[in-house]
Amino acid sequence: MKGLLIYSGGMDSTTLLYNYKDNISLAISFNYGSKHNQKELLYAKWHTKQLGIPHFIIKLNFFKKFHSSLLKGGVEIPEGHYCDESMKSTVIPFRNGIMLAIAIGIAEDRKIDYVYIANHTGDHTIYPDCRPEFIKYMGLAGQKGTYHNIKVFSPYINKNKREIALIGKTLGIDYSKTWSCYKGLKYHCGKCGTCVERKEALKGFDRTIYKKGGKK
Amino acid sequence: MKGLLIYSGGMDSTTLLYNYKDNISLAISFNYGSKHNQKELLYAKWHTKQLGIPHFIIKLNFFKKFHSSLLKGGVEIPEGHYCDESMKSTVIPFRNGIMLAIAIGIAEDRKIDYVYIANHTGDHTIYPDCRPEFIKYMGLAGQKGTYHNIKVFSPYINKNKREIALIGKTLGIDYSKTWSCYKGLKYHCGKCGTCVERKEALKGFDRTIYKKGGKK
Repeated sequence: MKGLLIYSGGMDSTTLLYNYKDNISLAISFNYGSKHNQKELLYAKWHTKQLGIPHFIIKLNFFKKFHSSLLKGGVEIPEGHYCDESMKSTVIPFRNGIMLAIAIGIAEDRKIDYVYIANHTGDHTIYPDCRPEFIKYMGLAGQKGTYHNIKVFSPYINKNKREIALIGKTLGIDYSKTWSCYKGLKYHCGKCGTCVERKEALKGFDRTIYKKGGKK
Repeated sequence: MKGLLIYSGGMDSTTLLYNYKDNISLAISFNYGSKHNQKELLYAKWHTKQLGIPHFIIKLNFFKKFHSSLLKGGVEIPEGHYCDESMKSTVIPFRNGIMLAIAIGIAEDRKIDYVYIANHTGDHTIYPDCRPEFIKYMGLAGQKGTYHNIKVFSPYINKNKREIALIGKTLGIDYSKTWSCYKGLKYHCGKCGTCVERKEALKGFDRTIYKKGGKK
C-alpha cells in the first residue's frame, strides 16, 4: 500500500505521516496563498526531513481567484467554534478536490498506489470536500481516471481530532512542531476555529504545545 | 443551466462553446506547458472575444512534474492513429481530473451551476480521464464536495469527432480558427494522432481548414 501523503504540516497530517511512515514514499504540500501556509510548511519540511521521506511543495497561484478569509487578502478570520456558521468564510471552494486531483496525477506519474489524506469528522460540518461521500466519489474518479487505479486512503475519516491527537501521543509526536492557527501570526491566536479545536484535542497535553505556537 | 466551460481552443471545446453559448457565462483555459498550448490559446481568446464570453487562462507550472510527450521537454510526439499503443506517451496523468477540480472550485466560488467539458468517444481508448465512468464519479465528487452541488456536463461523451464537426458545420464554425496538432509547430503536422483524427473529422470540409494550420 505504497502511499503519497497530502501533507499540510498541521496536527492531523503530521499524525498520519508518523502513523503510516513505512508506507509513505512521498509527501507533497501545497502553498496556495493562505495566511498560515508559511508557518505550516516549515513543519512539513522539518518532519519529512526527520523521517527521511521525500517531500516537495507545489505552489498554486490560481487560488487568488477564490474568495475565502483563509487566503491572504481575504476578510478577517472569524473567531469561535468550528461548527459556527461564521466559520464558513474559511472555506476555499473544492480545495481538497483540487489537492487530491493533483496528488492523484502525481501518484499515477510515479506509480504510487494510494493518495493519503487526513480529513476527519471535525471537518465535516463546514467543509463539504472533507465528507465521506465526497471522498468516496473522488476515490472512484481516481481509480477510473488513471491507468494504475490510484485510490484515496483517508484512515481518520471517522475519527475526531482528539482521537487523532491520542494516536499521536502513543507515537510520541511532538505537536509543538505543528501549526494550526488560521491567522498565521507569531503564535497561535487561541480564538479561531482551528485553535479552539486544537486546544480541545490537546487537553491534558503539555500546555506549552499550544501556547507558544510551536516553540517549546 | 449556467455553465463554466473548460476551453482548450481545439475543435471539440470550440464546438461546445458555440453550441451552448447562451448558457456559458465563463470560459477558462489552462496553460500547462504543452507543446501546443500557445497555439490553442490564441484561438480560445479569439472565439470568446467574438462571442463576448468572459475568459481567462490559468497557468499550471506544476505540470513540469509529469512525464508526457505532450509537454515541453518530453519525448517526441508519436505519429499514427489515436488508437495506437504508441499514443499512450501523450497521456498527462489525470489532466482532466485536475482541470475539472479547478473548474469546479471556480464554479463554486462564482455560483455557476455546471462545468462543461468536451470529451468524446475518440478520447476513450487512450485517455482514462475522458471515459464515461470517470466523468460520472468526478461529477458526483463535485456535487458532494461543494455547497452549490456543482455538476459536470459533457454533452459529447457519446459522440465522435466527426459528429462534433458536423454539429459545428451547422453552427457555421470556422475550424480554420482552431488548433489540434500536438507538435505546436507553424502548421498542423498532419501525422500525429490528433492531426489524423482532425483530418478524418473534417473530411469533405474546405481543405484549407486543415492544411494551413488555422490560417485561410
